[in-house]
Amino acid sequence: METKNRKVRMGMVGGGEGSFIGAIHRIAAAIDGQIELVCGAFSSNPELSVSSGRQLYLDPARCYPSYQIMFETEALLPPEQRMDFVAIVTPNHLHFPLAQLALQSGFHVLSDKPATLNLKEAIKLKRVIEQTGKLYGLTHTYTGYPLIKQARHLVAKEELGKIRKVVVEYSQGWLASKHDEESKQASWRLDASQSGMSCCMGDIGVHAANLAEYVSGLKIEALCSDLNTVVEGRHLDDDGTVLLKFDSGAKGVLLASQISAGEENNLRLRIYGEKAMLDWSQMEPNSLWLKTNHAPAQLIRTGVGEFCASALQAIRTPAGHPEGYLEAFANIYVNFAKQIIALEHGQESSNRLFDVPGIEEAIRGMAFIENVVAANGSQSKWHSFSVN
Amino acid sequence: METKNRKVRMGMVGGGEGSFIGAIHRIAAAIDGQIELVCGAFSSNPELSVSSGRQLYLDPARCYPSYQIMFETEALLPPEQRMDFVAIVTPNHLHFPLAQLALQSGFHVLSDKPATLNLKEAIKLKRVIEQTGKLYGLTHTYTGYPLIKQARHLVAKEELGKIRKVVVEYSQGWLASKHDEESKQASWRLDASQSGMSCCMGDIGVHAANLAEYVSGLKIEALCSDLNTVVEGRHLDDDGTVLLKFDSGAKGVLLASQISAGEENNLRLRIYGEKAMLDWSQMEPNSLWLKTNHAPAQLIRTGVGEFCASALQAIRTPAGHPEGYLEAFANIYVNFAKQIIALEHGQESSNRLFDVPGIEEAIRGMAFIENVVAANGSQSKWHSFSVN
Amino acid sequence: METKNRKVRMGMVGGGEGSFIGAIHRIAAAIDGQIELVCGAFSSNPELSVSSGRQLYLDPARCYPSYQIMFETEALLPPEQRMDFVAIVTPNHLHFPLAQLALQSGFHVLSDKPATLNLKEAIKLKRVIEQTGKLYGLTHTYTGYPLIKQARHLVAKEELGKIRKVVVEYSQGWLASKHDEESKQASWRLDASQSGMSCCMGDIGVHAANLAEYVSGLKIEALCSDLNTVVEGRHLDDDGTVLLKFDSGAKGVLLASQISAGEENNLRLRIYGEKAMLDWSQMEPNSLWLKTNHAPAQLIRTGVGEFCASALQAIRTPAGHPEGYLEAFANIYVNFAKQIIALEHGQESSNRLFDVPGIEEAIRGMAFIENVVAANGSQSKWHSFSVN
Amino acid sequence: METKNRKVRMGMVGGGEGSFIGAIHRIAAAIDGQIELVCGAFSSNPELSVSSGRQLYLDPARCYPSYQIMFETEALLPPEQRMDFVAIVTPNHLHFPLAQLALQSGFHVLSDKPATLNLKEAIKLKRVIEQTGKLYGLTHTYTGYPLIKQARHLVAKEELGKIRKVVVEYSQGWLASKHDEESKQASWRLDASQSGMSCCMGDIGVHAANLAEYVSGLKIEALCSDLNTVVEGRHLDDDGTVLLKFDSGAKGVLLASQISAGEENNLRLRIYGEKAMLDWSQMEPNSLWLKTNHAPAQLIRTGVGEFCASALQAIRTPAGHPEGYLEAFANIYVNFAKQIIALEHGQESSNRLFDVPGIEEAIRGMAFIENVVAANGSQSKWHSFSVN
Repeated sequence: METKNRKVRMGMVGGGEGSFIGAIHRIAAAIDGQIELVCGAFSSNPELSVSSGRQLYLDPARCYPSYQIMFETEALLPPEQRMDFVAIVTPNHLHFPLAQLALQSGFHVLSDKPATLNLKEAIKLKRVIEQTGKLYGLTHTYTGYPLIKQARHLVAKEELGKIRKVVVEYSQGWLASKHDEESKQASWRLDASQSGMSCCMGDIGVHAANLAEYVSGLKIEALCSDLNTVVEGRHLDDDGTVLLKFDSGAKGVLLASQISAGEENNLRLRIYGEKAMLDWSQMEPNSLWLKTNHAPAQLIRTGVGEFCASALQAIRTPAGHPEGYLEAFANIYVNFAKQIIALEHGQESSNRLFDVPGIEEAIRGMAFIENVVAANGSQSKWHSFSVN
Repeated sequence: METKNRKVRMGMVGGGEGSFIGAIHRIAAAIDGQIELVCGAFSSNPELSVSSGRQLYLDPARCYPSYQIMFETEALLPPEQRMDFVAIVTPNHLHFPLAQLALQSGFHVLSDKPATLNLKEAIKLKRVIEQTGKLYGLTHTYTGYPLIKQARHLVAKEELGKIRKVVVEYSQGWLASKHDEESKQASWRLDASQSGMSCCMGDIGVHAANLAEYVSGLKIEALCSDLNTVVEGRHLDDDGTVLLKFDSGAKGVLLASQISAGEENNLRLRIYGEKAMLDWSQMEPNSLWLKTNHAPAQLIRTGVGEFCASALQAIRTPAGHPEGYLEAFANIYVNFAKQIIALEHGQESSNRLFDVPGIEEAIRGMAFIENVVAANGSQSKWHSFSVN
Repeated sequence: METKNRKVRMGMVGGGEGSFIGAIHRIAAAIDGQIELVCGAFSSNPELSVSSGRQLYLDPARCYPSYQIMFETEALLPPEQRMDFVAIVTPNHLHFPLAQLALQSGFHVLSDKPATLNLKEAIKLKRVIEQTGKLYGLTHTYTGYPLIKQARHLVAKEELGKIRKVVVEYSQGWLASKHDEESKQASWRLDASQSGMSCCMGDIGVHAANLAEYVSGLKIEALCSDLNTVVEGRHLDDDGTVLLKFDSGAKGVLLASQISAGEENNLRLRIYGEKAMLDWSQMEPNSLWLKTNHAPAQLIRTGVGEFCASALQAIRTPAGHPEGYLEAFANIYVNFAKQIIALEHGQESSNRLFDVPGIEEAIRGMAFIENVVAANGSQSKWHSFSVN
Repeated sequence: METKNRKVRMGMVGGGEGSFIGAIHRIAAAIDGQIELVCGAFSSNPELSVSSGRQLYLDPARCYPSYQIMFETEALLPPEQRMDFVAIVTPNHLHFPLAQLALQSGFHVLSDKPATLNLKEAIKLKRVIEQTGKLYGLTHTYTGYPLIKQARHLVAKEELGKIRKVVVEYSQGWLASKHDEESKQASWRLDASQSGMSCCMGDIGVHAANLAEYVSGLKIEALCSDLNTVVEGRHLDDDGTVLLKFDSGAKGVLLASQISAGEENNLRLRIYGEKAMLDWSQMEPNSLWLKTNHAPAQLIRTGVGEFCASALQAIRTPAGHPEGYLEAFANIYVNFAKQIIALEHGQESSNRLFDVPGIEEAIRGMAFIENVVAANGSQSKWHSFSVN
């Protein structure tokens, strides 16, 4: 399969000001220059929807007051302008009606997870997908990591032997106190009408289950579940442990928590086989341990050694450059852009906040190189650093 | 300073097919949706230059055969179309002539480092900048990390007390063998006519020196330098150590190497003060250690706790989500875009290589949530997992 | 309580040649010079028992052929010679009869765990202890670590707030294959008549449970248990997960495994409270994490900062010197002792195997110091290293 | 070489109350039960010398008021009682006269480092050793670690290829402030008359140099040295960096510091060869990295996989049990001994400070095992924990 030379056009529903995940989706879509955000209905508040779109530099005509209007209007545009797919980044209860309407309006759908409010809707959605023939994708993000793809590959290649046990954990602390419920992110997740029948399992447990099945290639067949509502006054679970039986007979344990104060976003997967184990942690995603009983442990690092095609394709930076390197680079770019705009408006073009290394750093850098080379050629120990 | 609502337009020189750093710059520019790549001269080979631009979905009219033509042509466009700035991502020897011409043609410049081939050019460049009044930026990427900005802030706030010692190291192994010289990246760096008077110090030592000065706020005043050409047959240094004296009287050590087989991109900065030390490593950029003698060590993690404005502005993801999270997300987006294009061309729309979680994962996810909740409500230990 | 100035005398039952844990107990008893091994019945084989004692440099008269004879004989010795206590390091099924007889013979007992073959015996043992008035100790080793004592202290001081969740894991891989069963250590542990009703839970799960209760100060009140016999042909569990309810209402998860190929001795305890969490791993026992949601994580390191009396007393080395430092030191001592004995027997007194730094290293060391000082005083960069 | 069955007898000079290193030496000597401390002159103060010996449970007749008397008296004892060797643990200036007298009095010597006050004395000492034919050892402790021996082995086997660069660092913070000078340890090290011509290089730099030569098999041939006296008012160096040339042409860097506030005992050695590198840190001594450019990094862990004879002999615990495990065990033993003595004196036999797990933990442990097994056999989810 070879892709042809055009950008894919994206519309977005949800993700207006104050949204966390909307901005994440937009960055993700922008990174490779392959997808262009062309329109959106960013809020259920029509005014906010439109103003959010403008802040994103969209054509004002395509900043829609509602998703219904967006789907209708876009459907009437010529195919070479019309959006190709809709990114759905709303609270959970809107995922299904939105996906259904988008698909039926002729658009592919890329939806945030969980897919729907309940299983019944998900099954119904499958029928809509089949009827419309459109594509449907779900952002189980963690399967997008290069080393997760490599881990799946190693399991499939039977590097671990028969799998015996899967331990997957997803611990967070961000809902540890009553006080934490006040954020927009928290309030809808703890409200069953928007979030569904589960908070912790619906929000993060489902990621952990997906990751375990994705990498192991096994399917959960039975489970023993202990859910807890730890913080008083909540109606949904904020913590839980699930014992798992997989279809192969392997056992598993899934721990999930949103009340584990002190945990950031601790998603970790371990898979134990007859011969070896794999251990991966999302907070250090470029390290994958492969360990056996009778040899040194191997630390597989993104970009060092050989990788399956699927992992290779998911890597953008060379070994030793974590993805943050791209964002560090981006910080220089975006600050430079801000300096340009500031200059245009006659404002102070550079300050500590929008710092970009400039000509002074350029000169010191060249002086460093020249002085180091000169000092190296000298028999004397110390050489004065000169910039001239 | 508040930025007004328009995208900034970028042109690029260099970075055509086979280039590593060009793609990195484009991703960095794209991430925030603030900058649009509008034109480029991507290669000294006119045909390759144009074809590279087309692959990046640029307007064919703005895929230029040479940077001279690009600067001339763009300068004649109306201001609201014309590129705002040029990103220079060529080998070193072109940095100066390119920057000079771009500035004199009325464009801001964001240049890869080192700024020029030698100090003389850098000083000359400063004059050109002053004369033209245009902005000039240099991509000393590592200063773009949030925790580097926070580290600078902590030093400036005197959390470390008076600085006594700075140890900065930048060790790589990618030029450890003759064989490694065959890549495009390696060959020009080892050629003094394109790279300048130093390979190791010019390529990475200068980053380390910049980082040390940036965070410490100190300036190098004298140095003792020992450069090595370890792999036979090379004409430039591929390794070296530099002892440093700073203007405050503090001492320092700078280690740089490109022949340290087994090292990925090991850039690490430690700053020791009277009261405390800071320790940061690029390969785990979201961790910054602050240690003292008589209390538990503090691990500052991006997004956990309080940060200076400059660091805050450089953070895009919540605590515990390394930047790779964005790229994992992007992998799902880009694979989904590829599926759309494939479908358009009647190809198999999904395969293991372009995998995107889809409706099957959606259904299993919803089933997981429902089964977990049902199992939790049961007195029996095990509950069969049903999907229906 | 102040201890008076005499050594305490220890006898040992079990721990003859080929035993792992016997040697560990003897080292532990010897370290502080407070306890002297004076006698033993090291094997159920009388000859082996005696010869093992001789190899440990014991008085031949006190190398007993059986524990019964040992208890009888020692009881008749004058109080100032008689052993004070018995260390029991046999397989599990002998723990109870041995402890009972020792106590009734007038000796204190320090027993390996688990205490007995079953609960009934443990309850009976309590009565014997009460009747005899002798001391009884159980080597739940992991509670002996300084930072475990500090962790308990921090919990008791309510640094974590009310405890919500305890996750304790003890994963090993040493019984991952049939082949691994051939060792002496493995065979009795997998034999219910010697080991009791459980292999994995009896051998290591019980350590994990003890540690969780010790540090948290909570008691297990109910549990949900899933034990597995993973390797075919075994009669006892070699893996398992237990969900826990504590008396305070807190929940817990206990994972234990002996078939997790690739795991060494991965005992880890995490305790989550309303305000903070603690995280400790046996494989890096001098690091204890204290983490909260809104401040940098604190890494408590043995010997850095303030500690409770109980932790302080358990520390033998200064900060930064892991306990292995003592054994590294001991390796030099024991090699030197071997050189002495070899010399006595006219053998080659030093070789690579029994290496001890000697006069050549002494001279080079002094030369290093002198040359470094001389070179520092010189204006020239390089100084030849001279030894004369 | 096989050692015969007798304990080796040790006398000690120095190491009385308040000494740090004396206690370390005694523990090291005691661990394996191969060496017996039989006599000592623990202080230059005769009364303190004798009382220190008594506290160590020595025969009062062999607690000597001075080392001169000790050497004379011991020399007259029958060979089977007489001490075999003297451990010298005094400040540096006494090392030479003591070693000389001990050797000439017929005793082997195991000396703390640095060997003497200066090079001249070390050369003189060599002659004394040759004349007397006695053994002489120097406690360069860090060469006693199992993985250091394995690292030396890997270098000798040419697993790294030809060595190109050695980076060794030894950073501490304990002398970071004036205030830190008040301890007994600090005051003599900063006094040239007791310590020699260097503080930092003499105390720890010499360890780093020894370790670099030991593992690499190379010899320092030339150096460039930059020593610093960072804290005001000191007469000796408390920090320094040394550039190294080895006899093979390889280069090196040695960093040492006692003023790096926040560092514990950070001794780290990296050796870079043509093919691979080794990386070892004293603060995690059971981990040794072996890294190459084009394969996963290997983490060699003590006891996992194959080791050279010299490393194997230096290992006392199984994989995953750091040496601290022995000391944790020892803490239980020593607390139990204290309980015995307390009981003997009618004191409260157990308290939180001298805690040893006892019969209550025994009963709970057995109850845990029984309840877990019973719960596993049940179809119900939860099982009440009963102790009866």
